[in-house]
Amino acid sequence: MLIGGIEAGGTKFVCAVGEESGEIIAKTSFPTEEPAETFQEVKRFFHSHKVEAIGIGCFGPVDLDKKSATYGMILNTPKTKWKQYDVLTKLKSDLKVPVYIDTDVNAAALAEYKYGAGRDVNNCMYITVGTGIGAGYVQDGETYVGKSHPEMGHVLIQQHKDDPFTGCCPYHGNCLEGLASGPAIEQRYGKKGAQLAADRNVWELEAYYLAQAIMNYVLVLSPERIILGGGVMKQKQLYPLIRRKVLDLVNDYVGIDNVDTFIVAPKLHDEQGVRGAMALVSSD
Amino acid sequence: MLIGGIEAGGTKFVCAVGEESGEIIAKTSFPTEEPAETFQEVKRFFHSHKVEAIGIGCFGPVDLDKKSATYGMILNTPKTKWKQYDVLTKLKSDLKVPVYIDTDVNAAALAEYKYGAGRDVNNCMYITVGTGIGAGYVQDGETYVGKSHPEMGHVLIQQHKDDPFTGCCPYHGNCLEGLASGPAIEQRYGKKGAQLAADRNVWELEAYYLAQAIMNYVLVLSPERIILGGGVMKQKQLYPLIRRKVLDLVNDYVGIDNVDTFIVAPKLHDEQGVRGAMALVSSD
Repeated sequence: MLIGGIEAGGTKFVCAVGEESGEIIAKTSFPTEEPAETFQEVKRFFHSHKVEAIGIGCFGPVDLDKKSATYGMILNTPKTKWKQYDVLTKLKSDLKVPVYIDTDVNAAALAEYKYGAGRDVNNCMYITVGTGIGAGYVQDGETYVGKSHPEMGHVLIQQHKDDPFTGCCPYHGNCLEGLASGPAIEQRYGKKGAQLAADRNVWELEAYYLAQAIMNYVLVLSPERIILGGGVMKQKQLYPLIRRKVLDLVNDYVGIDNVDTFIVAPKLHDEQGVRGAMALVSSD
Repeated sequence: MLIGGIEAGGTKFVCAVGEESGEIIAKTSFPTEEPAETFQEVKRFFHSHKVEAIGIGCFGPVDLDKKSATYGMILNTPKTKWKQYDVLTKLKSDLKVPVYIDTDVNAAALAEYKYGAGRDVNNCMYITVGTGIGAGYVQDGETYVGKSHPEMGHVLIQQHKDDPFTGCCPYHGNCLEGLASGPAIEQRYGKKGAQLAADRNVWELEAYYLAQAIMNYVLVLSPERIILGGGVMKQKQLYPLIRRKVLDLVNDYVGIDNVDTFIVAPKLHDEQGVRGAMALVSSD
């Protein structure tokens, strides 16, 4: 059967149709506008590409508590037009097929687990470091949700004593996202990360923050692999810096057999979001 | 059938025999000595109290990866005589019954979930704050393990600017356990926590550290309830302080409907460890 996937991001939507095996047959993407316009585009794509079920990996926070009256609804987002928007009901009524919803990062984690950098392990995390920071987690083929869903990008970390930046998270100031997201880099230095590629200090500080968060994820979740993606991680020099700092922090307290296979890059070339959305259909 | 439970702690062992329903028929406890002497006591108790299966909630780190060659063995502990000690094999060979092993804190979390402060929720954490700090997590009746098992007591937090104590964790210095365990309080102030009950500043600082860790647990696991136990939490004044600080840190980013039922005391009066060990038999 043909299935559909929607990667519903804060800046763009990606829609795809494909086989249950994960192969994509057709794909489109468009900017995230107001809900009505955006779902008009979604409807148009899936009217010309018929599917039997759809998965959506959605930006959030989104209510994933199946017992909740607002299940499938976007909650407390700074994007005011999307606040309280009922994504799940809208899709079901527009497309008349079963819809499976999870977070964007859980979908990405699921795709890397099934088809990418997590294929050989029983559980893995996918962390995206970009406009925001978020993480998804898959164990034994199932995405982890909890009561609602994790918001791992907002964990508290220790600010470096030589970093005067106050942090850009509107909720927590200097949480991980506040100190280490793409916008944090840009606000701290007045330039985008890509323009700072040669400045070693920028990436030492970035790794300092990401390593602390990873240390805490390791201690709380005990994952078998950590996959780091997103725009900021295009700076490949970050991987060895992060690996070294995580080893220093863990200090042999928990076993990390091989840090080079423990902390890795994604393998799905920015398709993990939409392929993971498709994979939500069969994993449910 | 009758089942056995062993709460294998770093300072004492508790052994119990009881019904599958969780009711305890007989119980004993003795100090944790070297492994040979300690398991001699265990054997003696279960020779006079026949059981058909035994669960053990064990101090750690302990290898819980069923695929590992050292499954059921204690790993990197400061208690040198216990390092590399194969608890699981020893119990099976001494007692000739099936043995189910998990961490001490996972066992405690399971007991509170089944019989105590987590009875009305689908998932809960149990955090013990005492000689060490550790946490267990149960979702839908199953303890969470990950690759090996979490070591949540060692998460990194921000040290208070007015706290000069360097932290007492031999691995990480000023991690949560290094700053907020019972020994940390005693080393910082030169007195045990119980002797400092009236000193508000002591508990404000303790709550400052615990609230940060809880904030991070909430963001990573999205638990439905957090149960705080252990010797340090006998200072009941901590609960309201921690609740208020967690609300301040979360800053409405994730929904906490009622903090008084979200962060609570245990209900099993220090029997959660051994009752949880018994419960490991039926939950496996």
